[in-house]
Amino acid sequence: MTILERRDANAIAQLRMNAPERLNALSDEMLAALQEQIDALKNDSTIKAVVLSGEGKAFCAGHDIRQMNAGRAAEDGGKAYFEGLFARCTSVMLGLQRLPQPVIAQVHGIATAAGCQLVASCDLAVAAQGTRFGVNGVNIGLFCSTPMVALSRNIPRKHAFELLTTGEFMSAVRAAELGLINRAVPEEDLEAETLKMAETIASKLGSAVKIGKEAYYRQIEMPLDEAYAYTSGVIVENLMHQDTIEGLNAFIEKRPPNWEDN
Amino acid sequence: MTILERRDANAIAQLRMNAPERLNALSDEMLAALQEQIDALKNDSTIKAVVLSGEGKAFCAGHDIRQMNAGRAAEDGGKAYFEGLFARCTSVMLGLQRLPQPVIAQVHGIATAAGCQLVASCDLAVAAQGTRFGVNGVNIGLFCSTPMVALSRNIPRKHAFELLTTGEFMSAVRAAELGLINRAVPEEDLEAETLKMAETIASKLGSAVKIGKEAYYRQIEMPLDEAYAYTSGVIVENLMHQDTIEGLNAFIEKRPPNWEDN
Amino acid sequence: MTILERRDANAIAQLRMNAPERLNALSDEMLAALQEQIDALKNDSTIKAVVLSGEGKAFCAGHDIRQMNAGRAAEDGGKAYFEGLFARCTSVMLGLQRLPQPVIAQVHGIATAAGCQLVASCDLAVAAQGTRFGVNGVNIGLFCSTPMVALSRNIPRKHAFELLTTGEFMSAVRAAELGLINRAVPEEDLEAETLKMAETIASKLGSAVKIGKEAYYRQIEMPLDEAYAYTSGVIVENLMHQDTIEGLNAFIEKRPPNWEDN
Repeated sequence: MTILERRDANAIAQLRMNAPERLNALSDEMLAALQEQIDALKNDSTIKAVVLSGEGKAFCAGHDIRQMNAGRAAEDGGKAYFEGLFARCTSVMLGLQRLPQPVIAQVHGIATAAGCQLVASCDLAVAAQGTRFGVNGVNIGLFCSTPMVALSRNIPRKHAFELLTTGEFMSAVRAAELGLINRAVPEEDLEAETLKMAETIASKLGSAVKIGKEAYYRQIEMPLDEAYAYTSGVIVENLMHQDTIEGLNAFIEKRPPNWEDN
Repeated sequence: MTILERRDANAIAQLRMNAPERLNALSDEMLAALQEQIDALKNDSTIKAVVLSGEGKAFCAGHDIRQMNAGRAAEDGGKAYFEGLFARCTSVMLGLQRLPQPVIAQVHGIATAAGCQLVASCDLAVAAQGTRFGVNGVNIGLFCSTPMVALSRNIPRKHAFELLTTGEFMSAVRAAELGLINRAVPEEDLEAETLKMAETIASKLGSAVKIGKEAYYRQIEMPLDEAYAYTSGVIVENLMHQDTIEGLNAFIEKRPPNWEDN
Repeated sequence: MTILERRDANAIAQLRMNAPERLNALSDEMLAALQEQIDALKNDSTIKAVVLSGEGKAFCAGHDIRQMNAGRAAEDGGKAYFEGLFARCTSVMLGLQRLPQPVIAQVHGIATAAGCQLVASCDLAVAAQGTRFGVNGVNIGLFCSTPMVALSRNIPRKHAFELLTTGEFMSAVRAAELGLINRAVPEEDLEAETLKMAETIASKLGSAVKIGKEAYYRQIEMPLDEAYAYTSGVIVENLMHQDTIEGLNAFIEKRPPNWEDN
């Protein structure tokens, strides 16, 4: 048994966090396992979409508080350990966004603190209707300062601020309305609905999706003019691909494309 | 018959894309006609609001794929043509936003790819309830990299990402919830509702709306401090206009303003 | 009777604008009184949350138009006065956001122009269901250029643009959907619901909330990488606080935290 299971099928990699007794906490071991898979997927052209889920009662309840506290035993009170921990955590969060493949969070039970950040850091998210989301570190005196980076780029600012300062939960229905997740579905449909989304994406031309995902996050941080100059270059490059030429020809000839490198 | 009809009435310019047999595709001709009207409207102080609509079954289905593919016949495989095409397309999209008059998209049927970008690039949008929106270039291997610039500045990022990578449609009701359009109305009310919005805007002081529209898009890209420094200058300038002085006097005297230059 | 009443209880400061006959207009006197309280609260560690409300029929109807017009009597037509006025107004709006304590707007009746900006500038907002919001300066020829800075950072851009250019009202229910307020409640529950939110926040570790609020607004304007580098430093600093150590210990020991400095 491994802390992060991976199952590949139909060009989709399903990653499943497997530390149910710790509510899939982002321990040193979990972060290392996630980073390892991110590094492996980065150059894996056989995989076209990634699904991230959790075993047991919760998707992920955030950092491993016991392990963090044990880190305090060091001479510096844990400072160096904490700095390393958040650097590794950030590397995983940014790594998901920088994978060439879209990453879908398949969320159930609880997604709190860094677990909520994990959802926000995926490109897409589908959640079971009963899921509860929160960035509730404030309840124990530790403001969710890193989770809020991802959260505040997903939902309107007053709603993010409320979650951060009240420590209260948000329902899956509300999360879908506000933009933290794409949709809430009945729990029994969760895996099927998430897979369906992954399969839809995996059926597209991988090189086009890869180009597009990278450009998406780059342009979103640019002023408008610059964003257009940049993406105009991207779409022209996309148009010169042999498989895209075939895609346009197929569209005109009203037939399915016959992609070589897909 | 022209590819872009213009009808002026009551200080409102109604532009109607008129290539229904091509679903009002943004062909070289359509882009040139749009640019021509943008250039004409830029200095037309008799016009105070612009409505953009499409003839036939669709508002606009994006670029003209046949014409694009014909561009590939050039020695460079179309690269120079594509670069020019997206420069011209960007000029139209930015041109709408830079017009002094607010521009309202009156949308029905289908608004896809660059047609969806056109909606996102207008300041306001009203759509018939049955309208379907999409940025579905990914279906033919051409990621909607330029449309996403406008789209991702209108709706939350996970929802934009889903549309871009799944190629699926979004309903008008959903588009209104997320912010791509201002509202969805019954198809039979579409023109009347859009015109009503245009008339409301056209009844305001044109110089104030012009000042405000320009400032709106400039401040939105600034850090908060800078945005306040800039808009404070703008509102003070606005306050020194003779017609604004009359507006404030009329408000205090509880009578309608008698604007000279409107 | 003072133009801005303050009542402190249970670590919550309730500020109540008290110029009901002027619909709590942001006159020179009101701005000065708000600035005075902001300056006082800045270093008041006994206060952990602030509630801002208005006496009478309206929360706040914006600037004091009569007083503004009187300012025109100066030799420069009021220019220097207006520059000062908007500098003082901006200082109040930014001051609310820069307070260490979260500020909740308790809104009823009408919140228009700079009154709507006041709501947008608070960290959180609860409104009575019948409240009407607007940035309707355009109706008298004065575009709400400074209010739009705060508004356009709260709600999607097409919706903000519509309010600014049509001068129409938005309901509280719509304001909650779009993100201008956190929620709309029955008028009779307004004060209780707002206080409950304030009490929830005031029950948290003040030092953590202070750290978090400051970081929230700073990181939101940064590129993603920079935001993570910055907030990683913030959360590590938070972790070294004695009271946060106690918070984590209490969590592990399944008991309430016993905070010393709270």
